[in-house]
Formats: sequence, C-alpha cells, structure tokens
Amino acid sequence: GMDGAPPAASPAGLSAYVAVSQLLGLTLLATTGTWLGRYRGGVAWHSPLQFNVHPLCMVLGMVFLQGDALLVYRVFRHEAKRSTKALHALLHGLALIIALIGIVAVFESHRTKGIPDMYSLHSWCGMAAFVLYLLQWLLGCGFFLLPGASFSLRSQYKPQHVFFGIALFVLSIAACLLGITEMLLFNIRDSYSHFVPEGVLANTLGVLLVAFGLVVGYILTRDNWKRPPLAEEMALSMDFKTLTESESPGAGSQ
Amino acid sequence: GMDGAPPAASPAGLSAYVAVSQLLGLTLLATTGTWLGRYRGGVAWHSPLQFNVHPLCMVLGMVFLQGDALLVYRVFRHEAKRSTKALHALLHGLALIIALIGIVAVFESHRTKGIPDMYSLHSWCGMAAFVLYLLQWLLGCGFFLLPGASFSLRSQYKPQHVFFGIALFVLSIAACLLGITEMLLFNIRDSYSHFVPEGVLANTLGVLLVAFGLVVGYILTRDNWKRPPLAEEMALSMDFKTLTESESPGAGSQ
Repeated sequence: GMDGAPPAASPAGLSAYVAVSQLLGLTLLATTGTWLGRYRGGVAWHSPLQFNVHPLCMVLGMVFLQGDALLVYRVFRHEAKRSTKALHALLHGLALIIALIGIVAVFESHRTKGIPDMYSLHSWCGMAAFVLYLLQWLLGCGFFLLPGASFSLRSQYKPQHVFFGIALFVLSIAACLLGITEMLLFNIRDSYSHFVPEGVLANTLGVLLVAFGLVVGYILTRDNWKRPPLAEEMALSMDFKTLTESESPGAGSQ
Repeated sequence: GMDGAPPAASPAGLSAYVAVSQLLGLTLLATTGTWLGRYRGGVAWHSPLQFNVHPLCMVLGMVFLQGDALLVYRVFRHEAKRSTKALHALLHGLALIIALIGIVAVFESHRTKGIPDMYSLHSWCGMAAFVLYLLQWLLGCGFFLLPGASFSLRSQYKPQHVFFGIALFVLSIAACLLGITEMLLFNIRDSYSHFVPEGVLANTLGVLLVAFGLVVGYILTRDNWKRPPLAEEMALSMDFKTLTESESPGAGSQ
C-alpha cells in the first residue's frame, strides 16, 4: 500500500473461489492416494508398484501445482510483480520436475514388465502436454525473466503465453482422465460395469479433476479478477511505452 | 455497411484461422467415418452396428457443430446481431438433436447386448456435457432470444454464458477422447500396443479433436477478433444503459 493506507482488498468472491480451488486440489490428491493405497497396493520406486508413482506425480505436478502456478497473479495481486513472477516460474518448475519423475516411473515400469511405450492416446496427449509445457516454461523464462526482451516484444508474446498456459493445463487434465480410463480398463475391465467401489472412486477422481479445472479456469478468465498494475508499474510501463513508440512509430498497430 | 461504404473487412489472420478450423473439422468427420467404415463394419440403426452411430453423432454434434456455433459471432461479424444470434441458437439446437440421436443409439445398443449403462468415466463426463449443454442452450434462449430479460440482466449473464459455453465445448472434446480410448481397449486391447493401423488412426482422431479445440479456442479468446458492436447497436445499448442506470443507480457495481 502507498502512504500507510490499508492494503487494497481482493475482489469479493475471488477469495471464496480460490479457497474452493484449494479444497478441490487437496481432495484430488487425497483421492488419488486413496485409490493407489487402498486398491492398487500403494506406491514404491524399486518394486512392481513403481507404476503407481506415475499417476500420483502427474496429478500433483501437471494438475495441482500447474493450476496453483496459474493462480499466483490472482492470489498475490498486491505484491510486487517481480516476486509474483518468480513464484509463478518456480511453481511451474517444481511441477515439471515432479512430472518428469512420474514419466520416468512409467517408462521404467514398462521396461521391467516388457510393455511397449507411447502407443496409446493417453501417452500421446500426456507426452504432448509435458513437452509443450516444458517449452512454454523455457519461452516464459526467456521472455519475462531474462532482461533481454523489450517491452513491446513482451506485450506481443503475453497473450500467447496466457492462452497456451490455460490450454496446456486443460490438456494435462484431459490426459489424466485418459489415464484413469486406461488404468480401470486394464485392472478391473470385467467388474467396472458393475459399479465396484474402485471404479466409482476413480470416476469420482475424474469428476474432481474436471471441477478443479473449471474453478481454476473461471478464476483466470474473469476480467475484473485480473491483477491490476500497481501505481509504480503503471508509471514505468507508460515510460517504456512512450520510449518504444517514439523509437518505431508503427510498432503499436500490429 | 453504412452509406454505401465498402463492407468492413475481417481482421487479418481471423479468416485463415477459421479456414484451418473448418479443414480440421471436416478431417475430423472423415477420420471418424474411416475408422467406423474400415475397421468397425460401418454404421446402421437396426443392426449390431447401431453402436457405431454413437461416435459419429457425438463428433458431428458435440464437437463440429458445437464448435461452429461458437464461431458464428466471429465469422459473421458484420451481420445484424439478431440474425447471428438466431444462427448461433439454431446450430447449437441442431448439435443437441444429433447428440441426442447418438445417445439413444448407445443406450439401445447396450440394451440389445445386455451391457450396463453409465458406469464409465466416459459416460459420466459425456452425459454431464450433454445435460449441461442442453441447460446452457435453454438458459441462452431464455436470456438472449426471448424479450423478457432486461439489458442489465443480459449483461450480467453474458460472461457466464461465454465461459460455460467454452468449458462445455472443451468437456465434450475430453469426453470424445475418453470414448476413443474405451473403444480401442474394448476392441483391440491386445494389438493396440503393437501400433496396429486402427489404433494409430483412432489416436490421430484424438489429436485432431485436440487441434480443433485449440484452434476454435484461440479464435474465440483473441480480444481483437471479438465481434465489434455495429454503430446502431452502440447507440441503442447506450440508450438502454442510461435508462437502466437511472432506474437503479447501484446495479452496475456488482
């Protein structure tokens, strides 16, 4: 806040939606853990249970942490942009590392069991989501964290970064839904249609994933919940803009 | 156009993206037809092939037509709002009818074969998408086509309508991906991992569905591709707004 004024409040509703998103996110993790622990023998690295590391890491990294990284600009709306940006990059980086562990787990597990890799729609969508997510992270660091990119280049790239950020989050959730369906049809193919508890629990996990995506997507796309520029940022970006436009008068019209 | 002036052009890029979306949409339908015709015996109503009506109708109704209905305000950006709105409602209505036929097909096919209904994550997501899509259509007609709703009520509902419209389109695509995975694991479970042509074709259909969703989503969310209000609409809505605000001064602040 400026001049000792009370810190500006978040818009009414935003905090409630963020709270719901976090409740959903934690329920997501608990449900995944319950499924793996109760019906799939638990999670361990050097064992036949290594496969189970995969769903746990993907839900934690590609859904929960990726979603929370997207929310950072809405939640910490009155912090300095530089710190919020660093947190955004850090959470995405953590999500990528955890997802990578989950991918190694499934490849090693396939090798041990002699199962081929990358033949299913789940693997195609999931791998596309991971590779493009890594690329998006590298581009984001290059454009927004390193000092090289000009103000006008950043402004041009930003809408693309935002669109593909949300698109990759959605694709990651879709890949998880496909993974749930694959796991159920491989493990309980015959009892699935009799509404056995494992099937209902895993379906519920799918519904929770969709609900988490919906709430996070709603928070991100509400116009009046976007992070407002701080007073000092406004002044700075005006200076930059004037500078840029006087350098090349036609650049703004693209 | 006003006063015999040449009709305003669409923004550069928009036409190209719309063309790509339509190419993808037609490829989507052709790929679905090829899969069903070449590997699944074709499509027929009173026969064991009745199931195959389901994927064909869902891709046509819940993806291609739903997507095109969303694009109407971008494509016919210089037509009168009333006609564009009618086309938007009509295409969604057609999509709903075709989707309903597809749903009847799978229920009848299950009954014939003695397979239980609504146990899978695909059926949960797909049915949720269809029921909410129908509800969204009814609400849309009630708010925007019937004369009852006030200008301020319409303005308040519109962002919700837009958000849930895109969300339901995305959920419909996710449900299709789940359906593809189910069909492959039921029909070619053992050969799927050997990259047989049917598996690769169906995976490609999945990738095309994701690509169609991406392109349509990109067109819909680009700020400068939104439909600009026509000159006469501007004047009209200003009148309405002034009227509404003078009736209840605090209403705009929600």
